[in-house]
Amino acid sequence: MTTPRRLRYAMIGGGPGAMIGPIHRFAARLDDRWELVAGALSSDPRRAAEGAEQCRIAPDRSYADWQSMIAAEATRPDDRIDAVVIVTPNHLHAAPAIAALDAGFHVICDKPLASSIEEGLAMAQAVEQSGRAFVVTYTYSAFPMVRHMRAMVAAGVLGDLRVIQSQYAQDWLASPLEQDGNKQAAWRTDPARSGAGGALGDIGTHAYQLAHFVTGLHAEALCADLASFGPGRTLDDNAHLMLRYPGGVRGMMWATQVAPGKGNQLRIGVYGSEAGVEWDQEHPEQLRFTRIGQPTAILERGNDLLNIGGYSTRLPPSHPEGYLEGFAQLYSDAADLILARDAGDMEQVAASPLPGIEDGLDGMRFINGAIASHKAGTWLARDDWA
Amino acid sequence: MTTPRRLRYAMIGGGPGAMIGPIHRFAARLDDRWELVAGALSSDPRRAAEGAEQCRIAPDRSYADWQSMIAAEATRPDDRIDAVVIVTPNHLHAAPAIAALDAGFHVICDKPLASSIEEGLAMAQAVEQSGRAFVVTYTYSAFPMVRHMRAMVAAGVLGDLRVIQSQYAQDWLASPLEQDGNKQAAWRTDPARSGAGGALGDIGTHAYQLAHFVTGLHAEALCADLASFGPGRTLDDNAHLMLRYPGGVRGMMWATQVAPGKGNQLRIGVYGSEAGVEWDQEHPEQLRFTRIGQPTAILERGNDLLNIGGYSTRLPPSHPEGYLEGFAQLYSDAADLILARDAGDMEQVAASPLPGIEDGLDGMRFINGAIASHKAGTWLARDDWA
Amino acid sequence: MTTPRRLRYAMIGGGPGAMIGPIHRFAARLDDRWELVAGALSSDPRRAAEGAEQCRIAPDRSYADWQSMIAAEATRPDDRIDAVVIVTPNHLHAAPAIAALDAGFHVICDKPLASSIEEGLAMAQAVEQSGRAFVVTYTYSAFPMVRHMRAMVAAGVLGDLRVIQSQYAQDWLASPLEQDGNKQAAWRTDPARSGAGGALGDIGTHAYQLAHFVTGLHAEALCADLASFGPGRTLDDNAHLMLRYPGGVRGMMWATQVAPGKGNQLRIGVYGSEAGVEWDQEHPEQLRFTRIGQPTAILERGNDLLNIGGYSTRLPPSHPEGYLEGFAQLYSDAADLILARDAGDMEQVAASPLPGIEDGLDGMRFINGAIASHKAGTWLARDDWA
Amino acid sequence: MTTPRRLRYAMIGGGPGAMIGPIHRFAARLDDRWELVAGALSSDPRRAAEGAEQCRIAPDRSYADWQSMIAAEATRPDDRIDAVVIVTPNHLHAAPAIAALDAGFHVICDKPLASSIEEGLAMAQAVEQSGRAFVVTYTYSAFPMVRHMRAMVAAGVLGDLRVIQSQYAQDWLASPLEQDGNKQAAWRTDPARSGAGGALGDIGTHAYQLAHFVTGLHAEALCADLASFGPGRTLDDNAHLMLRYPGGVRGMMWATQVAPGKGNQLRIGVYGSEAGVEWDQEHPEQLRFTRIGQPTAILERGNDLLNIGGYSTRLPPSHPEGYLEGFAQLYSDAADLILARDAGDMEQVAASPLPGIEDGLDGMRFINGAIASHKAGTWLARDDWA
Repeated sequence: MTTPRRLRYAMIGGGPGAMIGPIHRFAARLDDRWELVAGALSSDPRRAAEGAEQCRIAPDRSYADWQSMIAAEATRPDDRIDAVVIVTPNHLHAAPAIAALDAGFHVICDKPLASSIEEGLAMAQAVEQSGRAFVVTYTYSAFPMVRHMRAMVAAGVLGDLRVIQSQYAQDWLASPLEQDGNKQAAWRTDPARSGAGGALGDIGTHAYQLAHFVTGLHAEALCADLASFGPGRTLDDNAHLMLRYPGGVRGMMWATQVAPGKGNQLRIGVYGSEAGVEWDQEHPEQLRFTRIGQPTAILERGNDLLNIGGYSTRLPPSHPEGYLEGFAQLYSDAADLILARDAGDMEQVAASPLPGIEDGLDGMRFINGAIASHKAGTWLARDDWA
Repeated sequence: MTTPRRLRYAMIGGGPGAMIGPIHRFAARLDDRWELVAGALSSDPRRAAEGAEQCRIAPDRSYADWQSMIAAEATRPDDRIDAVVIVTPNHLHAAPAIAALDAGFHVICDKPLASSIEEGLAMAQAVEQSGRAFVVTYTYSAFPMVRHMRAMVAAGVLGDLRVIQSQYAQDWLASPLEQDGNKQAAWRTDPARSGAGGALGDIGTHAYQLAHFVTGLHAEALCADLASFGPGRTLDDNAHLMLRYPGGVRGMMWATQVAPGKGNQLRIGVYGSEAGVEWDQEHPEQLRFTRIGQPTAILERGNDLLNIGGYSTRLPPSHPEGYLEGFAQLYSDAADLILARDAGDMEQVAASPLPGIEDGLDGMRFINGAIASHKAGTWLARDDWA
Repeated sequence: MTTPRRLRYAMIGGGPGAMIGPIHRFAARLDDRWELVAGALSSDPRRAAEGAEQCRIAPDRSYADWQSMIAAEATRPDDRIDAVVIVTPNHLHAAPAIAALDAGFHVICDKPLASSIEEGLAMAQAVEQSGRAFVVTYTYSAFPMVRHMRAMVAAGVLGDLRVIQSQYAQDWLASPLEQDGNKQAAWRTDPARSGAGGALGDIGTHAYQLAHFVTGLHAEALCADLASFGPGRTLDDNAHLMLRYPGGVRGMMWATQVAPGKGNQLRIGVYGSEAGVEWDQEHPEQLRFTRIGQPTAILERGNDLLNIGGYSTRLPPSHPEGYLEGFAQLYSDAADLILARDAGDMEQVAASPLPGIEDGLDGMRFINGAIASHKAGTWLARDDWA
Repeated sequence: MTTPRRLRYAMIGGGPGAMIGPIHRFAARLDDRWELVAGALSSDPRRAAEGAEQCRIAPDRSYADWQSMIAAEATRPDDRIDAVVIVTPNHLHAAPAIAALDAGFHVICDKPLASSIEEGLAMAQAVEQSGRAFVVTYTYSAFPMVRHMRAMVAAGVLGDLRVIQSQYAQDWLASPLEQDGNKQAAWRTDPARSGAGGALGDIGTHAYQLAHFVTGLHAEALCADLASFGPGRTLDDNAHLMLRYPGGVRGMMWATQVAPGKGNQLRIGVYGSEAGVEWDQEHPEQLRFTRIGQPTAILERGNDLLNIGGYSTRLPPSHPEGYLEGFAQLYSDAADLILARDAGDMEQVAASPLPGIEDGLDGMRFINGAIASHKAGTWLARDDWA
């Protein structure tokens, strides 16, 4: 087997002081499938240049804005980028994504997809028309034990599904950091940049996508109760939801950014007629698995009770892989997806486990549905979410 | 200080094969404040006699039914019982409780209070008229770390409360045990004996009472989604609830008996503007406490970070007290309450932390409200629960 | 089956301010097999009387000293005590135990057996001559999951044993409490009252007995390194040991009372050629069990993977039993043992799992051997321990 | 600040099927400080070429053996390698390391240093003479929370040190994998390739180095008990050790590869006169920290109770970094060290936290000392270890 070539990418956003940009770069580097060759890292030219220098982007491929980058890269003969990676705040996803797709580039875009469903739909149209790969970085769906959990559900190990419990609980916005100059807090609590969802969009969409990824189910209806505890906040920082899935499956979700003691506690439990399984992001290498009447088993990579695999891995068991490795898996899978698409291997394209434009759109519908349900004070069927 | 006399009690229900009856007896014995001297342990005379012999109840105080027991005990001159303990299925709480109260006995009654709110209201009237002590055995509210948690909230350590998360998750009804002759499963899944609530009544009321006990708050509104997964079941075995408390506090509850891997996982987390604190029944001697920006601290008896106590204890720290010790505390406190009431010390009566008739009634309202909300598919204000 | 009569006991030591005395009384009460009817609770007459009143001992059976108690009780015609419970400091075990045995009473004695091996040997002789039951309260060997662990080893589930790791780590003597008037610390750090072992005797003997109880093995040799970190202390407060058991099995033990963060962390792990199993006193209701190549399983009462039982229980699974319930089991088993011995049923006597005089003596040998090994700076074979 | 250039490295060993080679490459890549440009990845030419292709090493820089690689690279004018990374079995460390140093290359070498102390001493001489940087990849000493632990000790937070407990427990050799063609097991259980230590060398040296890294102390004496449980094994697979450190500090270590249930359980606890702190590799992002009389605090990156830092980090708190991130830190620090050394900045060189030749040699002494102590059955002072 020949080693596939490294793909070339450009990054939009992610300059000095950014949080998620550097994480994408770590992730892209880990498996050696990608190289960063161009960037429009900041709207501030000095920061853009400084960032490019730090990232070892050649000065002539560090651009003042994404418009000029896409235009310039599109005309490079031999070493043009394969893909654009978008790590700006939510309201700055749609325009560069559409332009990149239109110019023939593949796109990897941070979550949630956009700041409104209208933007999301425009992006979906651009994906459709361009035939390019589009990946939304719902990171957790690439973690080894999450993929193993999905394989367990798919193999029927749990029996008929009954209940899906999820929570994504943080505490970093328990204090009003946005009033103290914290940049990350500022845009996330600002509807103009985040869109209509606060915790709902920032982390609730992760939990929602994870439940779908693991079970394959789409919610049919939801009932939401949103709250804004931070003084002066207009966006939710605490969201409670009940959900109904096909076949009578019931779900419950808690997304919060104001619960002291919760660093980044993303958890999901799926319970069926024969067994239950649980995952906790803060200890990502274990699953707790229980068949009815049996002791709970601690599943890890390498003690595959069920011999159903489902995951890639880089390390021996019990040498913990963490957040970056999961993120890196997304990038490796994206490289495979893009090479398959470029080669026209649509079977492999279809088999990709990666979250795509539909998952992105579904997150936008979820945000809208939750807000509408909250306002109505009642259940809302999926058809009425957007 | 003089050691107070042992109180005498009679038990109704709790004969051979019973689950909760023996637990009450262990609990009553542990602190040496009670002695069991009479009983109507079973409606089956042979089982009643057999149970009485095992409990060392004198044959002449083992009665064929509670009616004759109450009548006979009421006329004993010197050694009559102080209190009646009721450990029958829910639909058999009200009648003996009312009769006992009317005969001048104090009553300790298992939870939930009754099988209908009408029964509950009749009991409340009997309590009122009799002036006797009435205790509902919401056991968990007597655990040391739960009481410490309550003291922390009362002392303002958490700041303004924001979110109350609770769950009471079991798995023992994941299989349809009631179809295999399991007596405990049979009456709990039978509306005629349990009342209108399944998991909701059996364990949801525990979680609901616990949230109230710890925070002092009563929910103003709730929105419930109930499900029955066990084949042929008419009562709920999985309940999802969202709750609203005064001051904008939001709550969420999961009560289930069908989640494989959940033995008896009662958990509560309370999060405020300054700190959060969590308790887990399966490791009852620890609290996880986090002030914003501080590391999570593992609070145990004996390392009272806040010097606010709130609990009694029998053992050195790190020698775990468990379920029986919590239950025993309820009985010791009940002895204190009864002695205070008999002595007319109404100040001490008022200070008792024990769950009483109002807590019992509130649980009945909660069940009714949840079922009504589920049927209506919407939020229901407290005034509309019963 | 007829309910056996309650046994009557007298307590020596355990007056107001005592730590372990009240715990024995809780434990004796829980299963309703015992009643406390006499006592020499303190050498201080006022404290003795006060304690007796608190324990509801009749004034005429509260004695000024154990000598007069044994003499007086021995002559009571119908209601004499069955057994004497000794909860004094170590140096006050031998004399009352021997006197009680000589007077025909069964004896339950706290651990370690005595303050010297000579005392222990004299006690053993008295046991032999009296034919009475003698129980040393190595509490942990009565915990449900410890007994289950023992049953697993006995059933061969682990294969050939290889390694036994144990630790008993506390922190309460990390500060020199004995210099601040702490009574418990004072006698435990005083060789005149404790004997030659500090942490070694107080808690090391627990770990040593536990390893024997679970595996059935007696160490053949040991190598010890003792230290006294508390200022002015002459007895060890930290003990490191390596042990060799028959069949090439290796052991390691850490007993400390100066490790901050260790409340009462008694842990034991046993590893064999086919599986390993671990227990932790601070979460006493779980075992971690791993067959080679299989996931670790969390064993609890009620999910008996191996269907080998081994334990008694009072509560449904996942309702934690704790320290007192284990202790109570010892008392219930002691009641059975005494009734069997009184009835001359030597088969049942032989089947008792209770730690007896030999276990007590073995603990004394262990202390002596460890100290001698430490002084010699080398391994010491069992024959040279005493 | 200018971004420093990427360093170029060659790898010796690490071809297809290798375990640790790929991990070094992941680690070198993560922080973008290194590029792999040359290799002698296998003594089998076909595997060497295949590996080079997978690693995108140019064919003309994939060498048939390390001798020719060092010779050829030494003569390249502009793009010669900066450093050689050695990931062969233990007996193949010394020769290439010495040759590389002699040729002026810096060296990063896997642990343990060599297969004998004589080889180690020869390597030390070459380091001395060459003036090149030499790093031994004791990975765990680069984990964020381990470095934080070290900073805590250095800041005196624990008070006077008293006890150091460590264990490195695995189970992968519980079965005799070396008899079933497992390559990793084969060389590790072969004295000709591993040297005199089995578990002692493979993982015991990690624990030993970690204790030194965290506390700054070197053991003064040790007493070891080694065992070989795997059938036919001549090297130890279970090692028990007691250690004495300066100032009366006592240590205990367990290194095993035959304890079922232990994946990769490296743990260290350090206890002093004022506080204790513990770390567990399987949950590497937490420290358990306890001041006397205070609750245990769960320290994580970002809730720096003590404000003493000590660690680098790539991710927000509670997004777990794992094994690779720790390893990557070693590589980033190595890049800094090499650049400093090349620049003659000996102050920065001296400040590097990296394990060097002395740490490597110390591990060899530890292995020798443990084996000699085991054979002698007694304590051995440091001077007699080698």
